[in-house]
Amino acid sequence: MIIVLKPNQKQETIDAFIKKLTAEYEVQVNTWVGTHSTVLGLIGDTTVIDSEYVAAQDFVESVKRVQEPYKKANRKFHPDDTVITLPGGQKIGGGSLTMIAGPCSVESEEQICLVAESVKKSGAQFLRGGAFKPRTSPYAFQGMKAQGLELLKKARKLTGLPIVTEIMSIEHLDLFEDVDVIQVGARNMQNFELLKQLGKLDKPILLKRGLANTIEELLMSAEYIMAEGNEQVILCERGIRTYETITRNTLDISAVPVIKRLSHLPVIVDPSHASGINWLIEPLAIAAAAIGADGLIIEVHNDPSHALCDGAQSITPDQFEVLSRKVNRVFETVSAL
Amino acid sequence: MIIVLKPNQKQETIDAFIKKLTAEYEVQVNTWVGTHSTVLGLIGDTTVIDSEYVAAQDFVESVKRVQEPYKKANRKFHPDDTVITLPGGQKIGGGSLTMIAGPCSVESEEQICLVAESVKKSGAQFLRGGAFKPRTSPYAFQGMKAQGLELLKKARKLTGLPIVTEIMSIEHLDLFEDVDVIQVGARNMQNFELLKQLGKLDKPILLKRGLANTIEELLMSAEYIMAEGNEQVILCERGIRTYETITRNTLDISAVPVIKRLSHLPVIVDPSHASGINWLIEPLAIAAAAIGADGLIIEVHNDPSHALCDGAQSITPDQFEVLSRKVNRVFETVSAL
Amino acid sequence: MIIVLKPNQKQETIDAFIKKLTAEYEVQVNTWVGTHSTVLGLIGDTTVIDSEYVAAQDFVESVKRVQEPYKKANRKFHPDDTVITLPGGQKIGGGSLTMIAGPCSVESEEQICLVAESVKKSGAQFLRGGAFKPRTSPYAFQGMKAQGLELLKKARKLTGLPIVTEIMSIEHLDLFEDVDVIQVGARNMQNFELLKQLGKLDKPILLKRGLANTIEELLMSAEYIMAEGNEQVILCERGIRTYETITRNTLDISAVPVIKRLSHLPVIVDPSHASGINWLIEPLAIAAAAIGADGLIIEVHNDPSHALCDGAQSITPDQFEVLSRKVNRVFETVSAL
Amino acid sequence: MIIVLKPNQKQETIDAFIKKLTAEYEVQVNTWVGTHSTVLGLIGDTTVIDSEYVAAQDFVESVKRVQEPYKKANRKFHPDDTVITLPGGQKIGGGSLTMIAGPCSVESEEQICLVAESVKKSGAQFLRGGAFKPRTSPYAFQGMKAQGLELLKKARKLTGLPIVTEIMSIEHLDLFEDVDVIQVGARNMQNFELLKQLGKLDKPILLKRGLANTIEELLMSAEYIMAEGNEQVILCERGIRTYETITRNTLDISAVPVIKRLSHLPVIVDPSHASGINWLIEPLAIAAAAIGADGLIIEVHNDPSHALCDGAQSITPDQFEVLSRKVNRVFETVSAL
Repeated sequence: MIIVLKPNQKQETIDAFIKKLTAEYEVQVNTWVGTHSTVLGLIGDTTVIDSEYVAAQDFVESVKRVQEPYKKANRKFHPDDTVITLPGGQKIGGGSLTMIAGPCSVESEEQICLVAESVKKSGAQFLRGGAFKPRTSPYAFQGMKAQGLELLKKARKLTGLPIVTEIMSIEHLDLFEDVDVIQVGARNMQNFELLKQLGKLDKPILLKRGLANTIEELLMSAEYIMAEGNEQVILCERGIRTYETITRNTLDISAVPVIKRLSHLPVIVDPSHASGINWLIEPLAIAAAAIGADGLIIEVHNDPSHALCDGAQSITPDQFEVLSRKVNRVFETVSAL
Repeated sequence: MIIVLKPNQKQETIDAFIKKLTAEYEVQVNTWVGTHSTVLGLIGDTTVIDSEYVAAQDFVESVKRVQEPYKKANRKFHPDDTVITLPGGQKIGGGSLTMIAGPCSVESEEQICLVAESVKKSGAQFLRGGAFKPRTSPYAFQGMKAQGLELLKKARKLTGLPIVTEIMSIEHLDLFEDVDVIQVGARNMQNFELLKQLGKLDKPILLKRGLANTIEELLMSAEYIMAEGNEQVILCERGIRTYETITRNTLDISAVPVIKRLSHLPVIVDPSHASGINWLIEPLAIAAAAIGADGLIIEVHNDPSHALCDGAQSITPDQFEVLSRKVNRVFETVSAL
Repeated sequence: MIIVLKPNQKQETIDAFIKKLTAEYEVQVNTWVGTHSTVLGLIGDTTVIDSEYVAAQDFVESVKRVQEPYKKANRKFHPDDTVITLPGGQKIGGGSLTMIAGPCSVESEEQICLVAESVKKSGAQFLRGGAFKPRTSPYAFQGMKAQGLELLKKARKLTGLPIVTEIMSIEHLDLFEDVDVIQVGARNMQNFELLKQLGKLDKPILLKRGLANTIEELLMSAEYIMAEGNEQVILCERGIRTYETITRNTLDISAVPVIKRLSHLPVIVDPSHASGINWLIEPLAIAAAAIGADGLIIEVHNDPSHALCDGAQSITPDQFEVLSRKVNRVFETVSAL
Repeated sequence: MIIVLKPNQKQETIDAFIKKLTAEYEVQVNTWVGTHSTVLGLIGDTTVIDSEYVAAQDFVESVKRVQEPYKKANRKFHPDDTVITLPGGQKIGGGSLTMIAGPCSVESEEQICLVAESVKKSGAQFLRGGAFKPRTSPYAFQGMKAQGLELLKKARKLTGLPIVTEIMSIEHLDLFEDVDVIQVGARNMQNFELLKQLGKLDKPILLKRGLANTIEELLMSAEYIMAEGNEQVILCERGIRTYETITRNTLDISAVPVIKRLSHLPVIVDPSHASGINWLIEPLAIAAAAIGADGLIIEVHNDPSHALCDGAQSITPDQFEVLSRKVNRVFETVSAL
């Protein structure tokens, strides 16, 4: 951590601050005196030092971290890729491409079973489906809730596909006991109380990047889960909010190699939410597979124009079949490079 | 609602769609046939029509709302300003400027009481203070929690100032029973389950705009609370995330007059979080008062450089005293224009 | 074009406006009268109607285009892909992947010739290199200017590679007479006077997307060039500015399929400027090839750590050789899907 | 400048780099050896060191400037406010509030004279008006060009108001000889060749912030002009591009106090372009005056609904008269605080 002090500070102020830092944290402090400012350099474990606290000192001009503020999610301290393995043997991470597919929301037993069977046939290893739906409008369909979770389990029983579904509130935790992978949506990426609770489970958590969150903040949210003991975290890039209006969000494809360099956690891509447009899903899925994503999560609906939500960004089972074939072909090529 | 169809659609497809719309919603549909496309115009109550559902039809090119998708928060249906009045007589909205001040987080009885007394003396009508603190890092101070709420109540008893404090989880609702105004932080603006619960209370809710949320989304989140029956919502502009890095966020000052035109709800401004820099708070507070904000929420700490959080954006009680005087002077001038 | 009027307008105001529209433009106007507002629908060629002019009428609430505001760049009126062919037979567009490579800036005859020969050997079909350099700081190296152009021509003579180089000012047009492809940088995307001049040439123009420009604005800038008669425009996605700070810009990979759907012009990707980090260039290049880009423009420097500009985002000739091989392998796979 | 090196570098590499830095620049280099990385601290004049060059060294992890990269625009080296004074005595900067008003574009002698007279009566000290108009569409009105400049001069002769008008190309420089203040539009903020030419004039330059440019980049563009000898630069905040769609841009009101702290140059605000909506102009103008802007530039049109451009964001002379009175009243109050 590098601390630039404002010009013309009293030596005793600086000395007292250094004394405090070395007393409270396991760090050493070096000092440089420049023409316009004095700079302090902290060496040691600075992860636990709150940079906002440092910045608040009235003699501090600015603070810069040299070390990343996350530990458990940091590849530096955990060089090997984390591979998430489910009891049924399905894997996420470690050099394979995992396909997670299913409807935006569960609508009926018939619908979810039909989609589950079709995506399984096309090679999906996980079934996604929303039971609790975060919607901008209180007047929009909010999901089938507990009943939706039951239908997901029926589809799982039928197909053997483990289920991935979103939790929206700590209150619902009990209902999710038998869910295979719990998803935290973009809007809850910094719902820290929820993250802490999920950190106490022994179950994979799929953590989506928030609409306006940096990659570092995403890793800090993963750290919230991991710090409580649950290290099975899957990160998901799903588009960020920019000024461009043709696409619903802007897929930050660079996030995949960047996260893989900074962290050992698996990273998947959600081209459905990233674009919001069904004809963009296949090209984005191909690009994600080509750049090294560990998986894809894709909205598939048997009848998009009657979907109760996100129809405009859903593809049909037939389109998924084609997508799946192409994506796997590209993934094989890239893996062999 | 205006629906642009893709070119070359079969007449029966269009007819069936129109029939469905008029059957399910209280709307009339007009049709225009253009050179390149056909356009449908819906007249009636389109608030409850899910525009994503419409966009998902494979013959639909684009959808545009003419009417706003919110009702209870909409000034069109409620032309008069909403004024929130507390049992003690304190008001927010309706032509006055309400000052809410206090530390980022409650740290001790001495600290909160000292700050409460000093901000009261300078004219604050409400005391703010965080007991549950949303922090990016799991290693940063997370607030005094339940104990912090107790200390806030002690400060209230001492000064008579009603308290404003942030809720981070539905689980804590019981603890907030005796809180005067419950704050929903920027990161929870779209925590819809929390909003619904708060909608069942008979207590003012201070709803902060999310870092990447549009004004329309903020009003939709207010609508979530109001749709459950609680119409005492105070909106808060606290800066949005942009590419500029000198300030922590970019205060969207235009949001104040825009929201006041679209909605009857009171709007306050948080210059502390908007800027993240203590020397910017006074000028931003003055600008907010000048543009017609109904109030300000400001972080004041007796000793910013020892604050356990947000010290860099806190001002001292003395600075608050000066700010308060200046802001009120500007507010009087503007009110008399 | 759909025009929503403010409520409660006088009939004669509306009638006069419709009369004016039909008199000045080749359009028909349909009218709907809704509960809260009246809507006008314009049918015909609305490209030439200035939507800002319409929005400025005091009885107009909002304006929405149904038709795109560009014609010559519009795939609707020109369904086949435009293929740019150079006198030497090199092509951009139409199903091939064109590699453009070379240093950020020309630094010496030795450097540019060495890089040109090496990138040619690795399969590049064009040589890039900056002679006039747009730099944020007036104190940074500004390029070798006219002399740099001469050195580029020497490298072209040596290798046969056509040259692509950036123009920064109309004043320099004469110097660019013998340049093969003239590049317009991101900062000049809306330098309309420059675009008009380039529209009078018979030479391909490589037009980069501005840091904060929408895809529609990029196509409108292409339209500026094409409206003057020069239809040889190559579009380039090079990253847009967002709040993320790890990468210099955020590559908007979705822009490639979106532009290809809206326009017939070829689209290339610049992974060097998009990321600003050399280890990100290969993965981004692979993703771009996978998603269907018509080409790549990549900064290659024989000695990045001594480059006079953009060294941090340059790769070495050896790295380019590897990249080129991988990218072509992915492109072949995708082409065969 | 602080340079963080990648871990595990050879000592001779580091030594050679330090030797090079001290040989080429007037700096001293301090070294810290930390657990995970080595850090170099440069003391001296680092303004002329290209931080991109440093970042390009393959052993460098990251670079951070402590000192700002601009000198002539820097308040540190020029503590007193710059006041621009015109031959006619009109001033910008130094504690007054300068009003610049006029139509988006000059449309006829009658129009420009009528507006000029009316804004003068309401207290404007400068007349603005566009002769060369940067328009997104090549099919939109492009301004009256040279003829427009002549009409502006007629209006100046009539009213005595100095004229402010935008230059779009170096080629037009001769035409601007008799213009009082030359404006550089947002789209040309980084048209560096133009800036250099303007730096050779002895005439105030009004430099607008680009849509996606940081405050530091704006100051660097001012530095381009000043480095050539022309220190009469007026900066203008006119809204930046964000994801919010209700307003055309987002006025970054914090930029005013931030720039005034970093630089001695005067800063004005353009509420017309910032909002794009006429009913927002007055509140934004009031806020700008309250926060300490040195002036306002406002679009006023005698007949906004017939304006050839930007009508939606123009106000009438009567509205300007009211605005001017209110804004001055607020400015007086704030000045007296």
